[in-house]
Amino acid sequence: MRMLYHLPLSPQSRQVRLVLGEKRLPCELKTERVWERRDDFLAMNPAGDVPVLTEENGMVIPNAGVICEYLEEAYPDTPLMGRTLRDRVEVRRLVAWFNEKFAAEVTRNLLGEKVDKRLSGRGLPDGQALRAGYANMRFHLDYIGWLAETRAWLAGPSLSVADFAAAAHLSCLDFIGDIDWKKSPAAKDWYARVKSRPSFRSLLGDRITGFAPPDHYADLDF
Amino acid sequence: MRMLYHLPLSPQSRQVRLVLGEKRLPCELKTERVWERRDDFLAMNPAGDVPVLTEENGMVIPNAGVICEYLEEAYPDTPLMGRTLRDRVEVRRLVAWFNEKFAAEVTRNLLGEKVDKRLSGRGLPDGQALRAGYANMRFHLDYIGWLAETRAWLAGPSLSVADFAAAAHLSCLDFIGDIDWKKSPAAKDWYARVKSRPSFRSLLGDRITGFAPPDHYADLDF
Repeated sequence: MRMLYHLPLSPQSRQVRLVLGEKRLPCELKTERVWERRDDFLAMNPAGDVPVLTEENGMVIPNAGVICEYLEEAYPDTPLMGRTLRDRVEVRRLVAWFNEKFAAEVTRNLLGEKVDKRLSGRGLPDGQALRAGYANMRFHLDYIGWLAETRAWLAGPSLSVADFAAAAHLSCLDFIGDIDWKKSPAAKDWYARVKSRPSFRSLLGDRITGFAPPDHYADLDF
Repeated sequence: MRMLYHLPLSPQSRQVRLVLGEKRLPCELKTERVWERRDDFLAMNPAGDVPVLTEENGMVIPNAGVICEYLEEAYPDTPLMGRTLRDRVEVRRLVAWFNEKFAAEVTRNLLGEKVDKRLSGRGLPDGQALRAGYANMRFHLDYIGWLAETRAWLAGPSLSVADFAAAAHLSCLDFIGDIDWKKSPAAKDWYARVKSRPSFRSLLGDRITGFAPPDHYADLDF
């Protein structure tokens, strides 16, 4: 059976779960407490982080970016990376935008401080990081709203991995109640469309001991 | 004319220069002082970082990872991403290893503290970061040495973007004299092979005001 080593509040893991769902590839989920640095897991992925996908044929594929490129090549029936060279550049540009820039400026400052630190016993959130995270988020929500207003989906006319990379980060931040959707109606409207896809259902069912999502988290009509 | 907006000591820029060289794609280099946040540059790449490649047909491609995937799809004659699904996973895994893990653990702590801070006027290197960078580098050089001892090239039997991602980071650190090659003969032997490729020549000719590379930097027989 295909298996994904993941963490429920890892945006990179959620991105892969969404892409697997869209491509209708069944997959068993296995929670990996990466901070315990389990030997067998490090042997599979020396980088020590999630997600890691394993296939029935023995292939081991770590890293959300690597997994999504692999899934697109191995299972091209539901294309999610764009068709033309230009489309593919824009999809990958936005995937990098969310997994590098948004991750460093927003996710690390909010989710990293509030969740990762607590789960791995590394102390309390740093106030300066939280303030930076909230300030950066406003800029990023505006950018998402602008993309959503000018295109059908974030990277262009088709739903793509860019939408799932963005929605994966936002869904984790929404889980901890850190998104003020009133600030960007266009971003909210786009997120509602992604959130209502069947591939999103398993994410909305995640529960994490010690964290209670806000009432609107799993509500498709928030 | 194809143009690459770059910085001489940006490993991601160097990675793209090496891939362009291997694929024999002529390209004009344009130094972009990213810390000045030039409006025209931000309009091309809102992320504000180098490298950014522009093609004669008007395409604008930012981000080393995005550029390398684009070049492989647009100019497949000299394949540098592996041929089989397994090969391609391993190439991309190592590219991510160097541009995410090595970058965070080594490059940012050494090059970021010594060069980026100085060029952008952000003060003196932090001693704790430097110590962490040197400690992490030993682990990474051992890993590169182990890969080089067990395979013809880092990702397997063929030269690939993985070699250029790794060599791009190491060449920048070598420029500032931060690599003790005696510590890992296998890594040194692999690096000497990459360094002697014609695509590497332009990197070895780079000169940066205020920084003098060590004598062995441009020596192919170091």
